[in-house]
Amino acid sequence: MKAYIGLDIGGTKILGYLYDEQGQVFAKEKKKTKASKGIETVVEQIKKVIDGLIDEKNIELLGIGAGAPGLIKDEGTIVFSPNIPFKNFDLKEVIESAYGCPFVLGNDVNVAMYGEWRHSDLSSAKSVLGMFVGTGIGGAIILDGKLYLGMGSAAEFGHTVVNNDGVFCGCGSKGCLEAYASKSAMQKFIIAQLKKGRESILSSAIEDGQVIKSSAIYDAYKAKDSLAIDVVNQATKYLGIATANFVNIFHPEVMIFGGGIMESFGHDFLDAIKEEAMLHVMPGLLDDVALMLSELGDDAGVYGGYQLVLTHLEP
Amino acid sequence: MKAYIGLDIGGTKILGYLYDEQGQVFAKEKKKTKASKGIETVVEQIKKVIDGLIDEKNIELLGIGAGAPGLIKDEGTIVFSPNIPFKNFDLKEVIESAYGCPFVLGNDVNVAMYGEWRHSDLSSAKSVLGMFVGTGIGGAIILDGKLYLGMGSAAEFGHTVVNNDGVFCGCGSKGCLEAYASKSAMQKFIIAQLKKGRESILSSAIEDGQVIKSSAIYDAYKAKDSLAIDVVNQATKYLGIATANFVNIFHPEVMIFGGGIMESFGHDFLDAIKEEAMLHVMPGLLDDVALMLSELGDDAGVYGGYQLVLTHLEP
Repeated sequence: MKAYIGLDIGGTKILGYLYDEQGQVFAKEKKKTKASKGIETVVEQIKKVIDGLIDEKNIELLGIGAGAPGLIKDEGTIVFSPNIPFKNFDLKEVIESAYGCPFVLGNDVNVAMYGEWRHSDLSSAKSVLGMFVGTGIGGAIILDGKLYLGMGSAAEFGHTVVNNDGVFCGCGSKGCLEAYASKSAMQKFIIAQLKKGRESILSSAIEDGQVIKSSAIYDAYKAKDSLAIDVVNQATKYLGIATANFVNIFHPEVMIFGGGIMESFGHDFLDAIKEEAMLHVMPGLLDDVALMLSELGDDAGVYGGYQLVLTHLEP
Repeated sequence: MKAYIGLDIGGTKILGYLYDEQGQVFAKEKKKTKASKGIETVVEQIKKVIDGLIDEKNIELLGIGAGAPGLIKDEGTIVFSPNIPFKNFDLKEVIESAYGCPFVLGNDVNVAMYGEWRHSDLSSAKSVLGMFVGTGIGGAIILDGKLYLGMGSAAEFGHTVVNNDGVFCGCGSKGCLEAYASKSAMQKFIIAQLKKGRESILSSAIEDGQVIKSSAIYDAYKAKDSLAIDVVNQATKYLGIATANFVNIFHPEVMIFGGGIMESFGHDFLDAIKEEAMLHVMPGLLDDVALMLSELGDDAGVYGGYQLVLTHLEP
């Protein structure tokens, strides 16, 4: 049987799906990344996922596509990664020589958003932006059906300044979108408010050193917890401003919103973002832009990897 | 003789150059736009420029390219223009039927920046941004050698919010780049400060209802006038933040800075913008981006029009 593999190489786990030529998922496999054990172990884990998918199935692999966190070069080399000990590592060479089929690699958020777009009803759109709102905020730019990367690191949407001289951001700048609207920023704000003595049902959801669950913030928001409402209003406000900026810059056909926060809050969040964006966008520009929620959830990465290698193999 | 025409259709004047097949300027023509006299007069003025260029020269026109202010659709229709009474006007049809050659139209800032890029040593770059700092602030996105327009109105760089809840902008939003760093914004700031009783040699440069000359601000800045220094520092600060944002979004090979302010201040301004941008850009991203000043000045529009139609006619 001829087949493709989509891989989502994350900081904690590696997810892989086997797709047949009709695009049906034929097998799934998951392994721990074991990032702390070093690069060789991570590569072994990736191979275990692939081997598990093709095991005893008499598979002829046509291609493997993957996403990984960090800066990716030439669709195959991980220049660096925030969570995995790759440094200028040519994963393409390793995988292609081991499995004898083409391998294509992209940044995880880029790849996931590419998957969302290919999955959507709007997959013929020529200008598409992806906004990923999770622990951090990432983006993707898809023009004429291809990921736009500029010199390699384009679409750092989370690190655009929306508030000059605003709060510090981990990137070294101040007032970045990510410093207001990511899950980490929301958690930071919640902890600071709790320390000031503010009452909130969120106090039980904060665990030491752990990032708060999106669903916990959503539950508190739905229970009309005033701190949850404040933190959500702040996030949607800055996401709305950023959305207006991106529409003013790209005038895109489609914007797709994904990531844990978007998945938990859904249309409540998206509607608030759009409302705020309307206050900042150039008159008329937002009217025809389709703002949509991601639909694939945890499958976006593997599906994006699969679609990436499919596109790569197109004549 | 075979030739091309480049046109710059402005709010007050229409400029046209005739280019031979080697790209040499063969003739120049300038007429008032007479925008207040209505659309038919403006069209007559455009034709007078073209007629003046081809008059008695036995010219075979291969194509005409032009830039005009406002929103342009389908490379030929002016949807609306801030200074000229065009509304959903199909200028392409009018010109092509009158002169029997292809006509291509773009937004004036887009076209001028396209000209700057084609003129530059970096014309093979695949990702190029133009930032136009004049009375207003406009932009251009040139990807793979073509103007990127999204659904038609992309590159409204001046109306990206860089300071949440900042000063009001003419577009209806607050804290836009244009509200801090355009010549109009600089003038507004200068007038407000003078009204507060601040001493400045700029008081003599402000005329009622007229936009201040870029060169007047530059002269005061060079004379170490403290108000001029403040207004320049504010402009370069916000332009620096915006530049960092655009580099984080596009990771482009080249950014070209043009417009009256950039032309008057030159490298003094560009160096200050870069210094500020370094404080906000993602580590490493700005290192390989070529930041350059426009070189064509008032010729950028006509040259861009000429290059636009050349590109359009390429097989």
